[in-house]
Amino acid sequence: MKKSNLNSVGKSEIRKDAFSKVTGRSLFINDVKFPAMLYAATVRAPKPHIKILSIDDSAAKKLNGVQGIYYAKDVPGDNRVPLVFQDYPFLAEGTAKFQGQAVGLVAAEDPETAKLAAAMVKIKYRELPAVFDPLEAMKKNSPKIYGKDNIFKKFTVKKGDVKKAGADIEIEDVFSVNYQVHAYLETQGAIAVPRDDGGMDVYGSMQCPFYVQDAVAKVLGQTYNKVTIIQQTTGGAFGGKEDVPSIVCGHAAMLARLTGRPVKLIYGREEDFRSMSKRHPGWARIKYGAKKNGKIVSCKVKYVLDGGAFATLSPIVLWRGTVHASGPYEIDNVLIETYAAATNKVPCGAYRGFGQPQIAFANESLLDMLAEKLNMNPARLREINAIKKGGTTATNQKITESIGLRKTLALAKKSAGWSRKWKKPSSKKGVKKYGIGMASSIYGVGLGAGGQHLAKSGSFVQIEPDGSVLIAVGNTEMGQGARTVLSQIAAETLGAPYELVDMMPTDTSRVPDSGPTVASRTTVMSGTSIMKACKAIRGRIDKVVRQELNEKGKVLSKNGFYKAGNKKAAYADIIARCWAQRVHLSQAGWFRVEGTTFGEKDGQGNPYFVYTWSTMIAEVEVDTETGLVEVLNFISAHDIGKAVNPQQVEGQIQGGGLQGIGYALSENLVVDGGCMRNPDFAGYIIPTAMDSPDIVPIIVEEKYPKGPYGAKGLGEPPLICAAPAIANAVYNATGKRLNDLPLIPERVKCA
Amino acid sequence: MKKSNLNSVGKSEIRKDAFSKVTGRSLFINDVKFPAMLYAATVRAPKPHIKILSIDDSAAKKLNGVQGIYYAKDVPGDNRVPLVFQDYPFLAEGTAKFQGQAVGLVAAEDPETAKLAAAMVKIKYRELPAVFDPLEAMKKNSPKIYGKDNIFKKFTVKKGDVKKAGADIEIEDVFSVNYQVHAYLETQGAIAVPRDDGGMDVYGSMQCPFYVQDAVAKVLGQTYNKVTIIQQTTGGAFGGKEDVPSIVCGHAAMLARLTGRPVKLIYGREEDFRSMSKRHPGWARIKYGAKKNGKIVSCKVKYVLDGGAFATLSPIVLWRGTVHASGPYEIDNVLIETYAAATNKVPCGAYRGFGQPQIAFANESLLDMLAEKLNMNPARLREINAIKKGGTTATNQKITESIGLRKTLALAKKSAGWSRKWKKPSSKKGVKKYGIGMASSIYGVGLGAGGQHLAKSGSFVQIEPDGSVLIAVGNTEMGQGARTVLSQIAAETLGAPYELVDMMPTDTSRVPDSGPTVASRTTVMSGTSIMKACKAIRGRIDKVVRQELNEKGKVLSKNGFYKAGNKKAAYADIIARCWAQRVHLSQAGWFRVEGTTFGEKDGQGNPYFVYTWSTMIAEVEVDTETGLVEVLNFISAHDIGKAVNPQQVEGQIQGGGLQGIGYALSENLVVDGGCMRNPDFAGYIIPTAMDSPDIVPIIVEEKYPKGPYGAKGLGEPPLICAAPAIANAVYNATGKRLNDLPLIPERVKCA
Repeated sequence: MKKSNLNSVGKSEIRKDAFSKVTGRSLFINDVKFPAMLYAATVRAPKPHIKILSIDDSAAKKLNGVQGIYYAKDVPGDNRVPLVFQDYPFLAEGTAKFQGQAVGLVAAEDPETAKLAAAMVKIKYRELPAVFDPLEAMKKNSPKIYGKDNIFKKFTVKKGDVKKAGADIEIEDVFSVNYQVHAYLETQGAIAVPRDDGGMDVYGSMQCPFYVQDAVAKVLGQTYNKVTIIQQTTGGAFGGKEDVPSIVCGHAAMLARLTGRPVKLIYGREEDFRSMSKRHPGWARIKYGAKKNGKIVSCKVKYVLDGGAFATLSPIVLWRGTVHASGPYEIDNVLIETYAAATNKVPCGAYRGFGQPQIAFANESLLDMLAEKLNMNPARLREINAIKKGGTTATNQKITESIGLRKTLALAKKSAGWSRKWKKPSSKKGVKKYGIGMASSIYGVGLGAGGQHLAKSGSFVQIEPDGSVLIAVGNTEMGQGARTVLSQIAAETLGAPYELVDMMPTDTSRVPDSGPTVASRTTVMSGTSIMKACKAIRGRIDKVVRQELNEKGKVLSKNGFYKAGNKKAAYADIIARCWAQRVHLSQAGWFRVEGTTFGEKDGQGNPYFVYTWSTMIAEVEVDTETGLVEVLNFISAHDIGKAVNPQQVEGQIQGGGLQGIGYALSENLVVDGGCMRNPDFAGYIIPTAMDSPDIVPIIVEEKYPKGPYGAKGLGEPPLICAAPAIANAVYNATGKRLNDLPLIPERVKCA
Repeated sequence: MKKSNLNSVGKSEIRKDAFSKVTGRSLFINDVKFPAMLYAATVRAPKPHIKILSIDDSAAKKLNGVQGIYYAKDVPGDNRVPLVFQDYPFLAEGTAKFQGQAVGLVAAEDPETAKLAAAMVKIKYRELPAVFDPLEAMKKNSPKIYGKDNIFKKFTVKKGDVKKAGADIEIEDVFSVNYQVHAYLETQGAIAVPRDDGGMDVYGSMQCPFYVQDAVAKVLGQTYNKVTIIQQTTGGAFGGKEDVPSIVCGHAAMLARLTGRPVKLIYGREEDFRSMSKRHPGWARIKYGAKKNGKIVSCKVKYVLDGGAFATLSPIVLWRGTVHASGPYEIDNVLIETYAAATNKVPCGAYRGFGQPQIAFANESLLDMLAEKLNMNPARLREINAIKKGGTTATNQKITESIGLRKTLALAKKSAGWSRKWKKPSSKKGVKKYGIGMASSIYGVGLGAGGQHLAKSGSFVQIEPDGSVLIAVGNTEMGQGARTVLSQIAAETLGAPYELVDMMPTDTSRVPDSGPTVASRTTVMSGTSIMKACKAIRGRIDKVVRQELNEKGKVLSKNGFYKAGNKKAAYADIIARCWAQRVHLSQAGWFRVEGTTFGEKDGQGNPYFVYTWSTMIAEVEVDTETGLVEVLNFISAHDIGKAVNPQQVEGQIQGGGLQGIGYALSENLVVDGGCMRNPDFAGYIIPTAMDSPDIVPIIVEEKYPKGPYGAKGLGEPPLICAAPAIANAVYNATGKRLNDLPLIPERVKCA
């Protein structure tokens, strides 16, 4: 490995938030108080689909400490949550479409009184016909809850002609996946504080402060420059704090405006389960056609997501799933048809992977089935079909750079001892059976053509007189390490010691709308924005370095020194010189991505500017008596361009892997007739550290020349193909294919 | 008057802070609370000069609720307040040099306990020899409290040769002025809040957040990027919140660090009087030489300021007084020698006018005396000698632009009916005597060569998706109207409606160190910085306008529309287009001034980049029985370049005028043997609205081409020559010259 010229990028620098988090000093939203603060609670719909006839809150209002109970009619501005569509009301208007939908809001002097009052509000209603299954919902005679067909959105990707593919062999099957709950440790929460200038400050646990700013400005009917959203330390998000905080913060802000006092709104765990977005349940029928030599020639997909009662982010979740529905393989003939349908259940939204894990389970399971039909090692089948340099995706995008899929395959195989360990499934004797399985994925970094208007990032960089640096971006630190990685990029570009750089809390008034903190986009988008800002400042610094050193050449930075020619000067001394000369050491950065495309009719184009490539291998032991699956070993290899902070990359891989293991094996939300049966961690089982194998991270660095120091993105890929790798391993152990996630003991045992 | 092409600049737009201030919603620092906040009180030196032998705080520490009592030894970082010199300790080390100097700090659960504990701390001390008069202090055998000669700083300005001036007539006299107390309604106060990342946020009533950042970073021994200073709504400042908040905030921050909890420190009125900086008492001997025709040919000045126990800002207060010591007149031979001396009294510092009102009283009084000796109308003498275009100042700076002194003279005279009303003083009969007097001044805008390293300003501008705009600067709104004026400049430059623009609270983490909010520099410095940032954004907007309108020419903005060719487009629509195209609508602005100079030996050079010119006329009625002086009419004319907001300019003129009337007539702080005798508003008499004449503001607009829309600066001039105008009017009424300010009834009556 060649010696790096870099000072901070590529090093596992200590996380900026490590000290405050491990010492318990971090202030989460529930730790924060304001003088004269009120507490809020939400009145919720009791049934999945109702017409509200009347509301009796007379008893609730009489409770000592209740300051007000408010409904849709009291909303100061616009009652529609600004998301992809405008169908979701902050508070129900006449009807409610899922059990738990917000109908009213209580503000009281203490949280207990607020909750009691909310429970005492009596909603008189008539039940309306409801639909709970997305395939049912799309049928002609189903009760209609969205438009004429209950379809929020459909997409088509058509490449070549699947009918004329000339396959020697075809295979088709149907797969389904259930909800996944984000299971962040910290539930949703916000505090809204009325400002003395008539504006509103909102603090909250969130991923996307600019979504929240939009929502709060609209619900209050106020200009954006008077609405400041400040992200509080956030205890987990995973997509669950992408769109939902718009509602939580909007509710708090509305109450703060109506009462004139600061208002805190914190969800309890059960309320959080019942009301907030989840990973969409999904259904897919897939068919592959292949030549005898293993070359896949056609892929036909029908993919349906269960959107729940309102559109929220379903259209763009569906879009990502659509684009990636044929996996990381070069297939000349592709037909993908996808749907997001409305049902009378909690709206689904963003969750790490964003529509990909569902379809990846289907296509990577079917790929193994195809390999078996071809009598081929599944690794070999993937190697044959993996997109290579110059190859094209399902949307006919030509991949010309940064394509490390084969490397991830090779390194994962090597680490697992695949060639040695993989054997065809056989009806081995014994209760406990060993299996090994793999899966690969392609992941388009960022929002792509589905969200091109958001493909921008603002940043701000300022060097202080003592050389310490503060940076600000519109994206959030939510545990994924953005604060650390962006500080490293700034340190590297400025030539500043990493220890002297830190990021300000994310605050919408510091930088312009930078798009959301989702889709593994922060490193590449805000990283580039920061880098651009730093480069502008660095240009001014370098001028001073040349003056001071009386040199003309290029200025380099190394270990806290600037160098030109054979001379050097300490970073702090040069910064002091700059200040003495009143050199401008702040800069607003901006970065936008151009040219992503997606044909509305045939889905052809370049939907993303770059892709991350992944391969995972799971080794399992299946207890055929109990149906319990133990993951013995889990190898997760990713081509992410440059790893800015390798230890954090490993952490992301391990965290995402374990979340994928939970998705594969244990996380099973039961929603029955629109009613959630296990809305807590007693009934909804997430893996603990004790359930985790020693997840082996493998980093492949096929640098992306346009990314900051070559970086692409990693946040979501570590989860995407975990479930099919495990499902393939379970099949490898038992010889019985399970087409429905999760692989709970009941299913494994019965199979 | 030609019709203006401007949309907002030049209009009396409604103050941005009007609504929150008149409705009582503004939150001053004492209105703010944080959870678990402690309250602080200060242990102070009981005598003017002591050696501290020991401190017994055992009883104080036993008080229920006391969390800690701290001294110099407990300071986490550097105990020196970073000001011009580093002589002032945050907490006394071994000796204390004035009565009221901070010795220790108490933190307690409530303010009463904190105060009680502070009072219970017993300082055992030995009194040291002390000196209270600056002229005494400069004598050889005086007790030494600063260096070898008790001189903080001395300056010399030497132009031509006063000995060879060839005067026909000479006049010389000695004048003195007393303290002036800022008498802001809100006393000093701060809250320091420890951050979870180990940093410190400090909120406070202040003018100069970057001075405070410097102080807090140093007293805590912390990097600047971890110290954020946020200005709270500030209830008056006038220079009194320039340097003193460094101490108040430093104390609060130190306690917050030592206790690990938020700490509030608010001064009571008496404590504020006793401990915070004042306008320097001063002494001057001046001598003018003139030709018989009235042409002044020489001016010799010796000017001494009483700095108090520590240097604080005395060197630069003295410098401004030095540069302006011969007034707004062209005099070929000038010799100015000035001194700031140390005494065992409270340190003096910044006060509107900054060393000028003291010397202006002397030179404008003597000018009237010269006129009498020449048997000339004093207005005529001023007209003859007033600097005109191409003329030079005492430092030999050639004035080439924006010189409206004669216009202020002419308009003030006209408004007063001077030619009709002015008559030589005569021994008129009657108890109540009428008089009229005038005075003129020159005022260098900004910090000039005395603070060139601070002659910079950072700003930040951001246009939101709905077209609303937020701006940020490093300077503060302290009642002077910066928030409004800078919003107008931004609105004008961007083409945005004024209503959509507002300024964020000033916060050191938003913009780089912009220098202090002093010296009438905010409009010209931060205004230009904002204008530069807006111009950069405007360039990007104009591109979109041209695209949208399919025009190539210059883009103009008027009444919420952009125009190119004959077409126009609404502001909001264009901004929406910009956002849709992801145009970068934020910008960090920066402005610095170059080339001010001041020769260390002879004080020759260009100390300021532009000057404001003023003339004031006072009409008084003197009750010769009681000695009471009533100001009947007060005309205050100023050439300020462009008046960005004429109503605010008038407000500044009226406020400064009334403060000048107080300085002239009633404000008389008695400090006796180093002990303050009247530290409250019962004993220290400031004028009320009932004492105010209808101050007539006259605005002269000799535009300064390099200023924003032609603006110079105005904050300080409305006070500077008020006192001599009144003193000259009193002389005109009584025929008796009073050489010592203030003209309290006792003096007027006896004269």
